[in-house]
Amino acid sequence: MKFIRFKPKNSQTILQGIVTDMGFKPIAGDMFTGDWEVTGNFYTADSIKILEPLTPRHVIGIGANYVAEPNDLPAKVPDLPVFFYKPVSSVIGGGKPIVIPEGTSEVKFESELAVVMGKRASDLSEEEVTDYIFGYTVANDVTAPKFFHDDGHWTVGKSFDTFTPLGPCIETDFNPDGARVEAYLNGEKKQDSPTANMIVPMRKMVAYLSSVMTLEAGDVILTGSPLGAEMITDDDYIICSVKGIGDLQNPVVQKVSARSR
Amino acid sequence: MKFIRFKPKNSQTILQGIVTDMGFKPIAGDMFTGDWEVTGNFYTADSIKILEPLTPRHVIGIGANYVAEPNDLPAKVPDLPVFFYKPVSSVIGGGKPIVIPEGTSEVKFESELAVVMGKRASDLSEEEVTDYIFGYTVANDVTAPKFFHDDGHWTVGKSFDTFTPLGPCIETDFNPDGARVEAYLNGEKKQDSPTANMIVPMRKMVAYLSSVMTLEAGDVILTGSPLGAEMITDDDYIICSVKGIGDLQNPVVQKVSARSR
Repeated sequence: MKFIRFKPKNSQTILQGIVTDMGFKPIAGDMFTGDWEVTGNFYTADSIKILEPLTPRHVIGIGANYVAEPNDLPAKVPDLPVFFYKPVSSVIGGGKPIVIPEGTSEVKFESELAVVMGKRASDLSEEEVTDYIFGYTVANDVTAPKFFHDDGHWTVGKSFDTFTPLGPCIETDFNPDGARVEAYLNGEKKQDSPTANMIVPMRKMVAYLSSVMTLEAGDVILTGSPLGAEMITDDDYIICSVKGIGDLQNPVVQKVSARSR
Repeated sequence: MKFIRFKPKNSQTILQGIVTDMGFKPIAGDMFTGDWEVTGNFYTADSIKILEPLTPRHVIGIGANYVAEPNDLPAKVPDLPVFFYKPVSSVIGGGKPIVIPEGTSEVKFESELAVVMGKRASDLSEEEVTDYIFGYTVANDVTAPKFFHDDGHWTVGKSFDTFTPLGPCIETDFNPDGARVEAYLNGEKKQDSPTANMIVPMRKMVAYLSSVMTLEAGDVILTGSPLGAEMITDDDYIICSVKGIGDLQNPVVQKVSARSR
């Protein structure tokens, strides 16, 4: 099942819905618990604007998590992976522009498979992880390396508004093991890698995080980006894609400074 | 005005309230907008359990932000301060134990003045900052340095459950400029510093953050900890304190491993 959030055109009402052969059907209730029902209406694709599929509680990412091919995988997974947070204020949906902040003229795109947690999870084993996942979406982990601190802190460089496009939907019927993560910059393929090239595999990553912090429904975990990410600038167009979930498409614009507005 | 959250004893109901000479009065409505009213009841101190005063939207901290005395302040504030996030899952109220995670036997306390944002804020000037602050609380920015990554990433070491005690209240009538930040470990004073010893002053810090990300009501900003923070272990008792706001008191316990439970 594909869950989306959307606004009917010419409306400010935000609806949650599911994708069906008939079009987009709004739902009422809690998608995480399964206690929801369709409300009876439906919308066609051209009558709505799709938003990010949820407002996450946390956005948690992992650093440099892909190798070029399975032969390059290390014999041992790192004891302490590099994790980072992105603020929920950085989340946007497909279609909205990624805004390059003042002080730099380029940012980096990173296409990623994102896990959406479905319920409270603490001290999970790898085998238990899948039962606690609600579904999967596509993320673009945008970063401004110019704002990375020399001492290794990535916080500011990953925190600007619009730096975490998510979407287009949350797919609950999805097998992450056979998936490929792709990116297309101005139509040209830049990333295309199987999830088998992850250094810290998804289940191990979620199990590790659950040993540190209590995860909850709505926590989003970005599983890292394949090799091939590049800098993007004003007027670029970036598509992050995972087959079976969909395409997350965003134009790129340079921020106009408050002074020259 | 002092805002608190609490549970009446023998109840699971969480109430929001204000502190008055008559006791603790529950309120209904939105404390941030001012659109609230007292509901008529009141509770005495011994009939309630005080919780963390809010569930933050973000918890944002700043690294090493105090000098020993004003003479030590650098001539120029750093262009790119070290910021970090703590997950909202790490927040607890006063009275609840700080749990030392498996894999280490000590953690560090850090007493801090915490800013609670009151409304949406973007690209603020330093002069505008105060108008966007709802109030102030006390934080203990607990860290497990053993889980700091060699490459400078603090994420895991700052993320464990119980690592962000907040409270006891949010004080809206508070002058941060003349304040002192204190800590007492097992009754002995360990930290006592005026906020004038901050390297990045509070208003500059909030203005900088608002240039990166859109802040909202409920975002909590930890303004850094004075010199004197120490490691704490099982059975310690730590009080973080700011006069005019209150004492944030937490016992410290070692986590019992899932296996030996």
